[in-house]
Amino acid sequence: MKTNFARASFYSELDEMKKERILKELGEFGLHRRIQDILGAPSAEVVVGIGDDAAVFQPQNRPIVITKDAMVEDIHFRLQWTSAADLAYKALASNISDLACKGARPAYGLIAIGLPGETTVAWIEEFYQTIAELRKQWDLEIIGGDTVRSPKILVSITAIGYQITQEPIRIGAARPGDWILTTGSLGDAAAGLEILERGEKNPNDINRFFLITRFLRPDPRLKEAHRILERTQISSMTDVSDGLARDLPKICSASGVGARIDAALLPQSAALRAYSPDSAAYAWRGGEDYELLFTASPSQADLLISSWNNSDCPLTPIGEIIPSEEGIRLVNWEGPETPGYDHFR
Amino acid sequence: MKTNFARASFYSELDEMKKERILKELGEFGLHRRIQDILGAPSAEVVVGIGDDAAVFQPQNRPIVITKDAMVEDIHFRLQWTSAADLAYKALASNISDLACKGARPAYGLIAIGLPGETTVAWIEEFYQTIAELRKQWDLEIIGGDTVRSPKILVSITAIGYQITQEPIRIGAARPGDWILTTGSLGDAAAGLEILERGEKNPNDINRFFLITRFLRPDPRLKEAHRILERTQISSMTDVSDGLARDLPKICSASGVGARIDAALLPQSAALRAYSPDSAAYAWRGGEDYELLFTASPSQADLLISSWNNSDCPLTPIGEIIPSEEGIRLVNWEGPETPGYDHFR
Repeated sequence: MKTNFARASFYSELDEMKKERILKELGEFGLHRRIQDILGAPSAEVVVGIGDDAAVFQPQNRPIVITKDAMVEDIHFRLQWTSAADLAYKALASNISDLACKGARPAYGLIAIGLPGETTVAWIEEFYQTIAELRKQWDLEIIGGDTVRSPKILVSITAIGYQITQEPIRIGAARPGDWILTTGSLGDAAAGLEILERGEKNPNDINRFFLITRFLRPDPRLKEAHRILERTQISSMTDVSDGLARDLPKICSASGVGARIDAALLPQSAALRAYSPDSAAYAWRGGEDYELLFTASPSQADLLISSWNNSDCPLTPIGEIIPSEEGIRLVNWEGPETPGYDHFR
Repeated sequence: MKTNFARASFYSELDEMKKERILKELGEFGLHRRIQDILGAPSAEVVVGIGDDAAVFQPQNRPIVITKDAMVEDIHFRLQWTSAADLAYKALASNISDLACKGARPAYGLIAIGLPGETTVAWIEEFYQTIAELRKQWDLEIIGGDTVRSPKILVSITAIGYQITQEPIRIGAARPGDWILTTGSLGDAAAGLEILERGEKNPNDINRFFLITRFLRPDPRLKEAHRILERTQISSMTDVSDGLARDLPKICSASGVGARIDAALLPQSAALRAYSPDSAAYAWRGGEDYELLFTASPSQADLLISSWNNSDCPLTPIGEIIPSEEGIRLVNWEGPETPGYDHFR
């Protein structure tokens, strides 16, 4: 773990004082030693783990799947409604979801974290304790990273996995006629975020509590992805991180196809339906559900659905791949406005 | 490359407008396609490159060395004196330096970048064009990453290399009696930063220009590290990123030893000597020189020095490893104050 907290001579006097509020208690080495203690001993395949300039591991003879993202305070989360544990969970979950939808088994992670001077040691410990607990759940071992100062909290995780499928899962091999399927329910996270942004961190209402939990603690579909990929020849797969309205066009663009989605089929939780009469709009546009979105031939899809017995995470066909010329179409839409599918065009 | 620019429904109205100033011109897919175009086609070992949820590559049967860092605007750099090209160069150089001091040959990189809404497309293009140019120089291929919004510019790079040595290079195997050596000269970057912070971005003075260049465009000692490791049994190696006064204690702490540094031996450039009568203090405390700092037995060190014929990058013995009980000692110090070695204790 590098020690860029210490990069010399650039801090203002004031910043130096603020920084000491936390670092003085631990010292520079102390902070990193504390992180190492919390994260635990490296596994056998890890030759050099955290605490050095770089990590070293002996790779297995399989394709390596690697993904990286970044989350920034007040862009992707607010501290009013995100605890250190929530942040650690979500940052890791979104990367696990990326590995899942690429047919990978998680192996290693690196965490770069940026912290303001006033961050408490307790906050940092809670963050890394959560990361350590999740190692068991998702089998992802943290082998390195960086700690830097930053005016806002930022977390960037690099996650490394081994591909368990014969062929790589690409986002772009969908063909006209393929069915479009999704796991779980859509739109919950967007509604949960809305509730949090209104200041309701601990609502009494069970539906609202469910929606918030779906936003703060999404369940990456790792087991489900592996089960789908074991049984089914899929033609594309991604996860719903930016919302169906944005993630579906990525499949279409990469595959050179169009899509027809039946709005009446979009899977929506009872909580979301209770929350808003426009629940379909949340399901169509809302991001961060981390459900799987994938395509397969009708026969493959049919086979998969008929053998699917996970009632906690249903599989729903929501539409069909169509030729590129026909574009992306949303049918049976009953919302208040015709939704666009890319807000940036 | 993930598309977290688009994470839904959390942006304020104002931010939405700002963001469109750049993204409207390109669109969400357009931005990523432009980055892909600039970075070029993936190499044969890369099964899935940028543009998908994760990258996939077939690893060689060698230990993988991986490092990750983060740089944040106004903490590690300021836009007044850092162009997009400077930032791209330095962010990559610091990771190449980490790979170098671990005896690794660079292979792949992932870049997470956070950008404020007002960032121009030209800035983004300059950043990635520089990254693309450096691919040839350092043989590091960018295979993925993430683009997110951020109130300040942030860059986090993950660099992956293959270990070229038989055994991993660890920071912590120095033994009493070993010599402590460093490449190049120390303290230049800290002086360069000081000059930049005073507002002298383009000084007429050649010495100041040199010092600034050493800060903005450090030359990671990749070739030199490989040459040292081919010829010499070293007992530890790191790079001087946080300053000798902070990086040396890391070697000592990890190795369970002390060190005696001869201040009169600290290699200082003519430019640094001309810049300040306290040049030794810059050499001792200054960070971000990205020189190699390593230890070897006297006979190995002697052999290495006598066969070293790179006059552009001298090797200098600066001290000796001593028993842990004797601590870290700086002898022959003539500066204005006795320098501490860890500002956080």
